[in-house]
Amino acid sequence: MPTSSASPSEGTEAMNTLGDVGEFGLIKRVTADREQPPTTLLGPGDDSAVVAAPDGRVVACTDVLVEGVHFRLDWSAPDQVGRKAAAANLADIAAMGAVPTALLVGLACPRDTPVETLEGLAAGLWAEAASAGAGVVGGDVASGPAIVLSVTALGSLQGRVPVTRAGAQPGDVVALCGRIGWAAAGLDVLHRGFRSPGAVVNAHRVPEPPYAAGPQAAQAGATSMIDVSDGLLADLAHVAEASGVTIEVSTAALVVPPRLAEVASALGVDPLGWLLTGGEDHALVATFPPGAVPEDWTVIGGAAAGDAVVLVDGAVRDGAAGWDHFAT
Amino acid sequence: MPTSSASPSEGTEAMNTLGDVGEFGLIKRVTADREQPPTTLLGPGDDSAVVAAPDGRVVACTDVLVEGVHFRLDWSAPDQVGRKAAAANLADIAAMGAVPTALLVGLACPRDTPVETLEGLAAGLWAEAASAGAGVVGGDVASGPAIVLSVTALGSLQGRVPVTRAGAQPGDVVALCGRIGWAAAGLDVLHRGFRSPGAVVNAHRVPEPPYAAGPQAAQAGATSMIDVSDGLLADLAHVAEASGVTIEVSTAALVVPPRLAEVASALGVDPLGWLLTGGEDHALVATFPPGAVPEDWTVIGGAAAGDAVVLVDGAVRDGAAGWDHFAT
Repeated sequence: MPTSSASPSEGTEAMNTLGDVGEFGLIKRVTADREQPPTTLLGPGDDSAVVAAPDGRVVACTDVLVEGVHFRLDWSAPDQVGRKAAAANLADIAAMGAVPTALLVGLACPRDTPVETLEGLAAGLWAEAASAGAGVVGGDVASGPAIVLSVTALGSLQGRVPVTRAGAQPGDVVALCGRIGWAAAGLDVLHRGFRSPGAVVNAHRVPEPPYAAGPQAAQAGATSMIDVSDGLLADLAHVAEASGVTIEVSTAALVVPPRLAEVASALGVDPLGWLLTGGEDHALVATFPPGAVPEDWTVIGGAAAGDAVVLVDGAVRDGAAGWDHFAT
Repeated sequence: MPTSSASPSEGTEAMNTLGDVGEFGLIKRVTADREQPPTTLLGPGDDSAVVAAPDGRVVACTDVLVEGVHFRLDWSAPDQVGRKAAAANLADIAAMGAVPTALLVGLACPRDTPVETLEGLAAGLWAEAASAGAGVVGGDVASGPAIVLSVTALGSLQGRVPVTRAGAQPGDVVALCGRIGWAAAGLDVLHRGFRSPGAVVNAHRVPEPPYAAGPQAAQAGATSMIDVSDGLLADLAHVAEASGVTIEVSTAALVVPPRLAEVASALGVDPLGWLLTGGEDHALVATFPPGAVPEDWTVIGGAAAGDAVVLVDGAVRDGAAGWDHFAT
């Protein structure tokens, strides 16, 4: 409803799609009056942004979310989608042992996308970035057949060596920080037509990566680290392959949260499957020399000399593969 | 055609779409055996890349290209699309007075996209990045309804102050480096069903931004700079607005290249329209104190105190607006 006596062409009803406000109109709306962290030396509005990289290096990653593949706007509010897109990238920065500094956002969407939807997406991106200490410093918007959000995150190692997937040593312990299985449980609930319990469904909508645990692990001497985006076993398989070690996971160490146990029981599924193969919670999993595991991290296994595989309770687990967008 | 006696399931025919090779298979194919510049401290394959930022700052920008909007695969080869996507971003880095260091690529595309198409896109991205001294350091691929390429470029200011749109001073001269009007002419030719002359059509397919001219202008004391992505007048309007000056362009200084004059004559259009309002050539336009204009730059006008508008031969020109994806 128009809230003023302005002429219809200036009222809210006449300016409700991206086609109405235009590319530059949208950019003005989503960048006006935003606060930037001190690392943002030059924010949105020029050909490029300028971001501080105090130790002479910048950490950078890109992740793409597509409507209908990674999110549905009948299942998630726009700001939740924005938070999720930001979180997936911010977690990749944390998984190097770095602190996030900035996001850049590439958006394609149909001309008839409501401005309200895009303002919601932007609000979520800004909020999640701010929660990790980062700013949204740039981006672009173009017309396209569906909403595609390509987010790039930048970060600072603060002088530390990056923690890659390749440094796990035989004898290291494997430890986890953050939730696993929750987003997969939430997605299962939504796929079956339910919208509750809220805590589980919201885990699919908005992940809660433990951003600060990444730099914490690096400071503690983590030898390898990855964020759980494709599933615990699939992501540990990347570590096993890159490091050339066997990774052993003990299910006795994986406590199924009571809430997930209840939902699994109601749906008639094994909740352990969510914990081992569910992605998108963006927990961090790392290897440490014994005795170096920081507080808040839970030991769930170890690394050993041997083939580059992941063993669960001593055996290769069927169906351990995680999410590959194009796997048949 | 299969080129070996391998079983059909391993032959080329059985592995010809993204759905066949999968996300990780594609990433391996497009990143294997690539050379990286010395600024790439950690390349593709981990959660994030690490790129040198020697002066403690990183320049960053993002640009989105959508199939059917910015390119058509029946008009451009995949490697040309890759080059164009890279060039649009690399030019935005140059327009700050910086040298490009790295690209990250977010790609959405249908499962049935031929691997050959994606390898072509990747080859173009790598080639254009290399031509500007940058590496492709990371990215992501997801399924989507059309090809959407969101490229982020990073760059280094090498200790210089960034050249923004906001520094033009009354009394400065306006100078141009690089081609304008060519890409628009090429697009007009293609829209009318022709495929020649090749030099003009190829200008639409692959821009040739003068990357080195950006840092050169900064060193020479440019007070403002922008790359011509939306059209000379539209982009100068951004400079006028950000700097709070009147920008005056003299068409006498804009020489229509003979090739464009011929094509314009054949199509029955005014070639000056291409030069003034055609985007996507990614020339650089900058303001300099009088006497500071570097070699290879052509003076095309000046900045004066007054309203934040662009005048052409002393008058506001109708139809001077450039490309807004969602303008009605």
